[in-house]
Amino acid sequence: MREIIRAEYSGFCFGVDRAVKEAFTVRKTKGRTFTLGPLIHNKDVTDKLEDSGVSTISEGEIGRLEKDDTVIIRTHGVTRAVYDGLKAMGVDIIDLTCPYVINIQKKVSEYHDKGYQIVILGDGNHPEVVGINGWCDNSAYITPTGEVDIPLKRKVCVVSQTTEKQRNWLNLIMNIAKTSKEFVAFNTICKATEERQKSAEELSKEVDAMLVIGGKSSSNTKKLYELCRANCEKTYMVENAQELAGMINNFDGAVRVGVTAGASTPEWIIKEAVGLL
Amino acid sequence: MREIIRAEYSGFCFGVDRAVKEAFTVRKTKGRTFTLGPLIHNKDVTDKLEDSGVSTISEGEIGRLEKDDTVIIRTHGVTRAVYDGLKAMGVDIIDLTCPYVINIQKKVSEYHDKGYQIVILGDGNHPEVVGINGWCDNSAYITPTGEVDIPLKRKVCVVSQTTEKQRNWLNLIMNIAKTSKEFVAFNTICKATEERQKSAEELSKEVDAMLVIGGKSSSNTKKLYELCRANCEKTYMVENAQELAGMINNFDGAVRVGVTAGASTPEWIIKEAVGLL
Repeated sequence: MREIIRAEYSGFCFGVDRAVKEAFTVRKTKGRTFTLGPLIHNKDVTDKLEDSGVSTISEGEIGRLEKDDTVIIRTHGVTRAVYDGLKAMGVDIIDLTCPYVINIQKKVSEYHDKGYQIVILGDGNHPEVVGINGWCDNSAYITPTGEVDIPLKRKVCVVSQTTEKQRNWLNLIMNIAKTSKEFVAFNTICKATEERQKSAEELSKEVDAMLVIGGKSSSNTKKLYELCRANCEKTYMVENAQELAGMINNFDGAVRVGVTAGASTPEWIIKEAVGLL
Repeated sequence: MREIIRAEYSGFCFGVDRAVKEAFTVRKTKGRTFTLGPLIHNKDVTDKLEDSGVSTISEGEIGRLEKDDTVIIRTHGVTRAVYDGLKAMGVDIIDLTCPYVINIQKKVSEYHDKGYQIVILGDGNHPEVVGINGWCDNSAYITPTGEVDIPLKRKVCVVSQTTEKQRNWLNLIMNIAKTSKEFVAFNTICKATEERQKSAEELSKEVDAMLVIGGKSSSNTKKLYELCRANCEKTYMVENAQELAGMINNFDGAVRVGVTAGASTPEWIIKEAVGLL
């Protein structure tokens, strides 16, 4: 008999939950509605949203918008330039940027204006980090691991992508402290991420196999995978039940199976996948 | 033939040099002149100062001062309460607080007013630390090693005694970063201390014996001793030539002897001691 144990914290966080709910209930009074980039890193959700009449445009396509259109800014947020550009165009903006990300953008803008060198722990290609960097004139030094290989200014302001690992944060702070005489550190790894990572990590120590459910381009899902894989060799990452079906035999012989899911994985996708185990 | 190598940086720092020079040149137009606590941690110097008519009083004796008296505040600085008390009494104040220490007092006062928890790396009994703590209503958490054994407030401001060791600073920052979501760190270990410690530490690796010259109650001299002792078993700390004379045979057989001295050790004391080697 197989025992399936769901991590204490997994799946949608507050910001994503709010964004998905609001995006599906947008009532267009006039014009069309778009999300700027995929609403979340989950194709099943964005396909459903498309069916409901909300399609995705890229930042490069902003010029094609018309005055009566509605644009949804996703949880990751956007650069100041994009935000100001949309305002200047007069389109309706529904800003679903996660409040925790807005807080980071504000700090970065404030300390950049005060002359601090901004350092971001995160993935420089991730839209959240691209957005944050856009609030300090794209001047931030971005490090994915906490290693610092350039000389920094005398005064440094350090922030983190919300979904970063605590150990990378500590590595970065140590490297900053070794060279910087004055720095201000905002540990902006969000509580939901910490709880999700911690409960997945602990669970992965106690099971025979571990299933991590989340979008292929979801940064936080990949980190969950890495954390679990360090403790449990039989850790597998899938996007949905369909993908799990194609490799279900990997779980043969596993009596205790742990399950976790990224911040952008809806509950129905988790349930469908767990049903196959 | 014995080779005596003086550390690249040793002896008086800028703040102490300035304070000693000014204390010896105070011209009393009226009343008496006192230093509040010994001017520096060096009995030879304070004895000379006493001979020149400048004696030492303790903070407990402030009440005995008269309006025409002059009071010298030493490099370590004083609490806000003592400073304001002296001003209210109307005595002449010659403030020789090291400018680097004044900078720490200002930061501590500013961030305490903003609601931050102040953390000081240093010796809670050292007058510099007692003084700094007096600029945040004596509310600071003081740690001599960087270990933190109480829960801190959400926002933390970290400073250091000017003569602390860099490794203790890094230890403290790591401990703060593990629990605090927001902190501002001012590495207020002064450059003179860093240079003095670094050059003593390096020299101690290359010599047969090491002489550390400084006052018995000098915190920074003790740290020099500890750093050198870790590399060189034959490390000895003396206050002056007289004390060295009594244990000079410890240096028997040492061909290369390194010499360093604390921030409050005058050049003539170093020269006198080195003359015996």
